[in-house]
Amino acid sequence: MSDATTTRQSYQSINFADKLARFTDHWQPRVIAEMNDYQFKVVRIEGDFLWHEHADTDETFIVLEGELRIDMRDGFVLVSAGEMFVVPKGVEHKPYAEREVKMMLIEPRGVINTGGETNERTSVNDMWI
Amino acid sequence: MSDATTTRQSYQSINFADKLARFTDHWQPRVIAEMNDYQFKVVRIEGDFLWHEHADTDETFIVLEGELRIDMRDGFVLVSAGEMFVVPKGVEHKPYAEREVKMMLIEPRGVINTGGETNERTSVNDMWI
Repeated sequence: MSDATTTRQSYQSINFADKLARFTDHWQPRVIAEMNDYQFKVVRIEGDFLWHEHADTDETFIVLEGELRIDMRDGFVLVSAGEMFVVPKGVEHKPYAEREVKMMLIEPRGVINTGGETNERTSVNDMWI
Repeated sequence: MSDATTTRQSYQSINFADKLARFTDHWQPRVIAEMNDYQFKVVRIEGDFLWHEHADTDETFIVLEGELRIDMRDGFVLVSAGEMFVVPKGVEHKPYAEREVKMMLIEPRGVINTGGETNERTSVNDMWI
């Protein structure tokens, strides 16, 4: 039997906490959604990252839990849960979390987490969860 | 006296609740940030919107408070606080909130909220808060 009710498709929202609960490592962003050629990634961070910049794109940080500090060469910003910050392209920055921070990044597909350099902190790209 | 400490710039994060507290009307998105040619908008909605589609872009919904329902022609999705959903380009959809929902939209700059049609629900574009 087929009618309008039984054939209705059920779509699934994307739950940030559910996605974050599936891993515990730090500095390894997981892709959870795409919009056009942009990717949404969740990541856990703790401690200090490396100075880097993205020459061709802005980078968006949305904090879900904890307090993120982003150092720039001429100052810094604190970003708490329920807040966001956009680092303009070409601006050197260094994320830092005294205690663990859970956050979402928005970047064009293909962006490398360490910017113009590849090093021991460069993570696997395009890792979905 | 000028030294490194006094000349350090202080950057400001963007707080979603603060921005939403500055207005009470419904279906009137306010821009709070830009990333490349994309805009982040916060909006309060309540009740039913109109069917529409965006021919040239996906549209991202991130719910901050309440439960959003997005109807599509072949089904629907429920999106709660802490969740997101991306409506693919060209897909007809109709947001609905039984009780007030506070959410963030991400769209390319210049996108019209009612999609291909302009009507009484079309909001002012590029309104910053």
